[in-house]
Amino acid sequence: MKFGGTSVGDVDRIRNVAAHVKREVDAGHQVAVVVSAMSGETNRLVGLTRDVARLHDAREYDVVVSAGEQISVGLLAMALQDIGVAARSWLGWQMSVKTSDVHGAARIEMIEPDAMEAQFSEGRVAVIAGFQGVSSANRITTLGRGGSDTSAVAIAAALKADRCDIYTDVDGVYTTDPRMVPAAKKMDRVSYEEMLEMASLGAKVLQTRSVELAMAHNVRLQVRSSFDAPDAPDASANGEAIVGTLICDEDEIMETEIVSGIAYARNEAKVTLREVADRPGIAASIFGPLAEAAVNVDMIVQNMSADGKTTDVTFTVSQDELERALAVLKGATADLTFADLQAAPDMAKISIVGVGMRSHAGVAQKMFQVLAEKGINIHVISTSEIKVSVLIDADYVELAVRALHAAYGLDDELAG
Amino acid sequence: MKFGGTSVGDVDRIRNVAAHVKREVDAGHQVAVVVSAMSGETNRLVGLTRDVARLHDAREYDVVVSAGEQISVGLLAMALQDIGVAARSWLGWQMSVKTSDVHGAARIEMIEPDAMEAQFSEGRVAVIAGFQGVSSANRITTLGRGGSDTSAVAIAAALKADRCDIYTDVDGVYTTDPRMVPAAKKMDRVSYEEMLEMASLGAKVLQTRSVELAMAHNVRLQVRSSFDAPDAPDASANGEAIVGTLICDEDEIMETEIVSGIAYARNEAKVTLREVADRPGIAASIFGPLAEAAVNVDMIVQNMSADGKTTDVTFTVSQDELERALAVLKGATADLTFADLQAAPDMAKISIVGVGMRSHAGVAQKMFQVLAEKGINIHVISTSEIKVSVLIDADYVELAVRALHAAYGLDDELAG
Repeated sequence: MKFGGTSVGDVDRIRNVAAHVKREVDAGHQVAVVVSAMSGETNRLVGLTRDVARLHDAREYDVVVSAGEQISVGLLAMALQDIGVAARSWLGWQMSVKTSDVHGAARIEMIEPDAMEAQFSEGRVAVIAGFQGVSSANRITTLGRGGSDTSAVAIAAALKADRCDIYTDVDGVYTTDPRMVPAAKKMDRVSYEEMLEMASLGAKVLQTRSVELAMAHNVRLQVRSSFDAPDAPDASANGEAIVGTLICDEDEIMETEIVSGIAYARNEAKVTLREVADRPGIAASIFGPLAEAAVNVDMIVQNMSADGKTTDVTFTVSQDELERALAVLKGATADLTFADLQAAPDMAKISIVGVGMRSHAGVAQKMFQVLAEKGINIHVISTSEIKVSVLIDADYVELAVRALHAAYGLDDELAG
Repeated sequence: MKFGGTSVGDVDRIRNVAAHVKREVDAGHQVAVVVSAMSGETNRLVGLTRDVARLHDAREYDVVVSAGEQISVGLLAMALQDIGVAARSWLGWQMSVKTSDVHGAARIEMIEPDAMEAQFSEGRVAVIAGFQGVSSANRITTLGRGGSDTSAVAIAAALKADRCDIYTDVDGVYTTDPRMVPAAKKMDRVSYEEMLEMASLGAKVLQTRSVELAMAHNVRLQVRSSFDAPDAPDASANGEAIVGTLICDEDEIMETEIVSGIAYARNEAKVTLREVADRPGIAASIFGPLAEAAVNVDMIVQNMSADGKTTDVTFTVSQDELERALAVLKGATADLTFADLQAAPDMAKISIVGVGMRSHAGVAQKMFQVLAEKGINIHVISTSEIKVSVLIDADYVELAVRALHAAYGLDDELAG
């Protein structure tokens, strides 16, 4: 079980988390709980480090910031004991969660759960500080943004857990953003691959890295709401009840939709280089400098020109990186010759995602047709095995997402 | 160097501490700094543990509360780096400070400073979390109230430090309370034994335990103010300059006063048992039940009666434990027979302290004479090798302390 900062934001919420844990213990499970710092605490600590020194040693930053999770685990262990559940806290260095030495953004390398497993057999819940580990130099490390989800998945993998339940402020993963499309349905199951495509495309329920890790170690992930009544019985008394959305191997999903969900991302910008001299290494001369300037390039399309001597290159960046991208390209003109540099802000990316696409033809064609019927112009197309993304004018996002959601049969009939 | 919670209470004060450390580093010293949690932080964390559960697991309490020092050390290490002083933080488990398993009030058993010493040779300041250690079960322990002073002394002993400077909100140890006697002088040097007698008698500059530990390991302790300008040059450029008060072995004190200081404690109460049957074990039958009830008994006097069959026993307790003491004695009358139980609140204890007493006769006599001249009645007398304590009515505290301070030649001639 993993609870984020909002779920442990104050003493009452910590008690609520304890009640969730008790329900699972009462159902006969051995439970490890990973928690984040109380909401606001990490920001407070980060603020202190900024006030003390503008340039700070990442190792000392980790010492300060990891105190937030240390406080949470102690408090949750106490709250569990208070309702009669045996529990003890575990810090990154106690488990131990061995990580790389990249402080502030460390990667988990190995987890040694032996000491913790011994406690399970004594019926004790393990309350584990997320977001932290210990380096080979015996210093505290933190995993960087969203690291607690990753901690939870890595620990679930090390413990060979039956499931890793991520408690959040939403009750599951939807076929698209329910604030935009009221007919959006909560998915019972979704494959790792689909979740990865949707997470990186804007359905920000889980950190991408945690889903990748879950896929690599085949950890079954469940997203569910920490605001549900903790003592409500699960939907099915017989076998496993999925309350939220289960993210799992596609083999476990009996009936797959061709398209599982529609994702979107606003604040995209398009950059086009016209009549670039077409020679080997041209892509590197464009995207090398951009990578060095830490500009994140997403979609890339290259078309040969009619004469075969020049080419047009189009790519997308997030809108707030557009100016930086243009400055880099203008500064790199010695290596790079082109006739024109065109930029278009206020774009949006719409993606249809589904593992069923692999075995179905005409899925992309249907998307283009739906958008054409609504008079929506497609600027860039990019495809992968299980998704099709298009870049359109940001004004048409809602219209496009709703039309596609309906066209692929995702509307909830009850809600619709 | 050791800095308490007030000295690291906010970011500006942490910077001030860093400047104090830099001065010592610039003077060519290898420096270890022990710090407490930012003032208010420990109380905040203790409050959270109380809110979560009334009865809490001391092991989890230690996990939560020790986060306070963890935050301080990270911030101070950053502040030092920011002014060009190489530094790194050390937590109890990293050093490691091995303690007993008595969570919340653990005792230091062993310190392994090897890893830290290696860093000194690289010119790096060690910033050490006070108040915390690690148990044999690899759990975080805390040392209990005032534990940071004890940490500092234990670490100074393990490092074989030349000196352990305790920075506080006073600039040294005075011959008596300067708020009561304006002519009180700051002592340059005072012996461990004298300091122990004064600390336990109300001159609350240092924790008794830390002075005991310093004496046992011959750690030279200096008490000085953290509010002094950190970049002021020390008084003597040649050799060691004592800025505050040095607490050291009496061999190091060339010219000892016969009486070094006058201590006092208000809020004392006197209890007298009249005509107690005088038989072996009578003291145990009185003080055994009091100890069991956690009543702290201070002075004890027993006088044989004229007939040799009964005895009068008088002892003192702190005023807020008086009622409890009386209840215990009344409840214990089965084992204990006495004619009368008398109690007197509103007493005060005055003590003259000095290692010079050992070799000088008539020191106590002078005390009695001075008090008699002022018409002050002495209720109880208790003596040790280096101190004489008397119990008087609380109303006369100021008069007694001032008269004794002058009589033993302690008044500052400039101030006086």
